[in-house]
Amino acid sequence: MSRLAAGRIRHTVSFTLAHPEGSPAESEFLATAGALSAIPGVLEFEILRETSPKNPYRFGISMEFADRTAYDAYNEHPDHVRFVQERWLAEVTDFLEVDYEVPRPS
Amino acid sequence: MSRLAAGRIRHTVSFTLAHPEGSPAESEFLATAGALSAIPGVLEFEILRETSPKNPYRFGISMEFADRTAYDAYNEHPDHVRFVQERWLAEVTDFLEVDYEVPRPS
Repeated sequence: MSRLAAGRIRHTVSFTLAHPEGSPAESEFLATAGALSAIPGVLEFEILRETSPKNPYRFGISMEFADRTAYDAYNEHPDHVRFVQERWLAEVTDFLEVDYEVPRPS
Repeated sequence: MSRLAAGRIRHTVSFTLAHPEGSPAESEFLATAGALSAIPGVLEFEILRETSPKNPYRFGISMEFADRTAYDAYNEHPDHVRFVQERWLAEVTDFLEVDYEVPRPS
């Protein structure tokens, strides 16, 4: 079942790279980003192409966490921190974070 | 399995409403938007809360299509066109469309 389970957080980041489309540097960046999936708590990890012309982004990363605690642990994990500091900040030219949760019961 | 199947398109729209948070008008808009799920070809339809402070949006709609043909049919469906013209344009103050597809085999 693909719909987001109650209590989970779906964390998405849409982004554009400094590297030319189809370049080895682009492939290497995406492969390295893929290693984030090994961080404990990361569920349903995906790296996707962004295909709408209505925004400036070219890729997306999507993942889910069971709860806010798991999400915080991911954000603080050394592998994630290192990836952001050593790769993301230098090679991503534009990005947008969008996080989703199931609506609260009304 | 939640990961996007090859060939599918995940269509997402993050948005903010003119209506006050928690208002009946907000609830009614979201309920009406939910009716889009009945349009043929719409898969994995979700209405979600947006919870990251790093963007201006407050809700998200997410859905998947088996292929571009199904997506085009949705865009052109009278119920979708009517919803956009009669409700979306009047009641949504800000929005962003982001569509995802599985990376092409390299």
